[in-house]
Amino acid sequence: MKTEGNITLVQAEKMESVFFDILRKTGFADAKAEKIAEIFTTNSLEGIYTHGVNRFPRFIRNTCDGYIIPDAEPTLAHASGSLEQWNGNLGPGPLNALFSANRATEISDKYGIGMVALANTNHWMRGGLYGWQAAKRGYVFIGWTNTIANMPAWGAKDPHLGNNPFVIAVPYGKEAVVLDFAMSLYSYGKMESYANEGKKLPYEGGFDREGGLTNDPGKILESWRTLPIGYWKGASLSLLLDILATILSAGSAVNEITARKVEYNCSQVFIAIDIRKLKNYPSIEKSVHEIIDDLHSSVPVNDETKIRYPGENVPKLREESLKNGIPVAKNIWEEILSL
Amino acid sequence: MKTEGNITLVQAEKMESVFFDILRKTGFADAKAEKIAEIFTTNSLEGIYTHGVNRFPRFIRNTCDGYIIPDAEPTLAHASGSLEQWNGNLGPGPLNALFSANRATEISDKYGIGMVALANTNHWMRGGLYGWQAAKRGYVFIGWTNTIANMPAWGAKDPHLGNNPFVIAVPYGKEAVVLDFAMSLYSYGKMESYANEGKKLPYEGGFDREGGLTNDPGKILESWRTLPIGYWKGASLSLLLDILATILSAGSAVNEITARKVEYNCSQVFIAIDIRKLKNYPSIEKSVHEIIDDLHSSVPVNDETKIRYPGENVPKLREESLKNGIPVAKNIWEEILSL
Repeated sequence: MKTEGNITLVQAEKMESVFFDILRKTGFADAKAEKIAEIFTTNSLEGIYTHGVNRFPRFIRNTCDGYIIPDAEPTLAHASGSLEQWNGNLGPGPLNALFSANRATEISDKYGIGMVALANTNHWMRGGLYGWQAAKRGYVFIGWTNTIANMPAWGAKDPHLGNNPFVIAVPYGKEAVVLDFAMSLYSYGKMESYANEGKKLPYEGGFDREGGLTNDPGKILESWRTLPIGYWKGASLSLLLDILATILSAGSAVNEITARKVEYNCSQVFIAIDIRKLKNYPSIEKSVHEIIDDLHSSVPVNDETKIRYPGENVPKLREESLKNGIPVAKNIWEEILSL
Repeated sequence: MKTEGNITLVQAEKMESVFFDILRKTGFADAKAEKIAEIFTTNSLEGIYTHGVNRFPRFIRNTCDGYIIPDAEPTLAHASGSLEQWNGNLGPGPLNALFSANRATEISDKYGIGMVALANTNHWMRGGLYGWQAAKRGYVFIGWTNTIANMPAWGAKDPHLGNNPFVIAVPYGKEAVVLDFAMSLYSYGKMESYANEGKKLPYEGGFDREGGLTNDPGKILESWRTLPIGYWKGASLSLLLDILATILSAGSAVNEITARKVEYNCSQVFIAIDIRKLKNYPSIEKSVHEIIDDLHSSVPVNDETKIRYPGENVPKLREESLKNGIPVAKNIWEEILSL
């Protein structure tokens, strides 16, 4: 383990085994502890620290507080052809999500397209992971989750919308093109880290208390008026994703999650498409390559700018972190070791 | 027909019959001319003039120029369970889209979820229309199209992305909640109309030639660097929508459309979900109402701001326009009458 300034470099294997031990102590059976440890470690290896190592203590806390039930498993509530509704029974979000994404691919094996809508589940951490895994197995993946209200409707002051992360993943060689984003321009975690470093956001990220657009993260953290992507457009998409997650899963809507004060028991949708069933399957890889090549042929704004597709930096970062260790803030790693 | 300033109010019935006659003259058979006239009129009645009456002359021009083939009909290219790939054969975009959306609902009647991917089609005008029609018949609808490149990748100067409009529609009483938006914050049409009126955009809508963000529509029209919704996020979503439309339909990608210089022969996706097949179907209407009621309970920024769900103003506008006539710029109506 190497240490540089406030950062410790933790080897993935070490991180996974530390997570495993803590999960076992917290009441997870071996197989579940293993899988959850692997998911948190993979998210960290791939650079999504906010929903990897940095979030691990909160996952343990939520489990100790009874919001996540360690031994709960998803149960089938209703099936009709390519539509299935599952009950997450408040089990661990990452396991419920992984199960549901896999189940959606199984349904698509049969019908071409498959959908699992999941009620009563918990935070999936990083939705992109399920997209990556499905895409690397050859499926197109579309999925989203609702959240606690953390963003105002367009023209409103108080939060009634979730940031409802949305994922689309497409196979690309041995890797994938993966979009994974929330409906707010910046996450609260991102704004907090800018505020802690005394930095302004690169672009206006919300409104101050007086209703002016600002790039000062501190003022947005005060007002809780974070900016939806594309202003009214992201606010609309957030609303529709919540409506769909709620009605398709028969689960809780953003306003119901919000009424419970703690973010647990949310609703998610997982759609898989089996592209092997398409007439043009043999030429799909070439088609994706051509689109990416065209993107890469863009004229950059300046020499330092690299034009990338979503997820492009992941394979390299994963490889580097596997070799050099995963960078973790010392205080966070110490907190984890004390769990 | 009433006239106020530069605006003429045209009764829907009159507009539809004028459209029908012109379409007949342009080579469309009666049934097709009727349906296309109805679609352009409905889009105008519901306030989407840019893809209704204002766009009608261009639709006729594109037909005369041979980009739209009046008597072409979609043909099935490949079917596998709930996935179907259709060839639009360069027929009129609105008819191909209406057919495909309906076909997706038929597939969902059988399988729960149904997808039609459509290659070699033309501009669908207003994607929201197909969402409204599917949702009013009780289906959830998700659809999108690719376009000619009209937006740079994030960090790039030259356009390699389409604005790729995206639609989600959900039944809501006798009407629907319908999101219908492009991946660019402002359309070129909107920026042109602001520029013509000498007005600034409400929010920064793109970059000027020097690479600075600007709300001056003229400067964006010069640079062709329109802003994706949520900056890098909307650029990513645009890319993924293009990849999906292309590979699912086996059709043309944005870069292939762009290479042909004229925007025709694009690719579209239509997904329908038959919510009658869900366990909670009897309570879905109530769930949607509760989410909308919660949205409406938001505290507005000021007394003049009305918090609305996407599509909320459509039923009232439709009713008013049916009664009072559809407002059309005089010069546009005169151009149409001369076709």
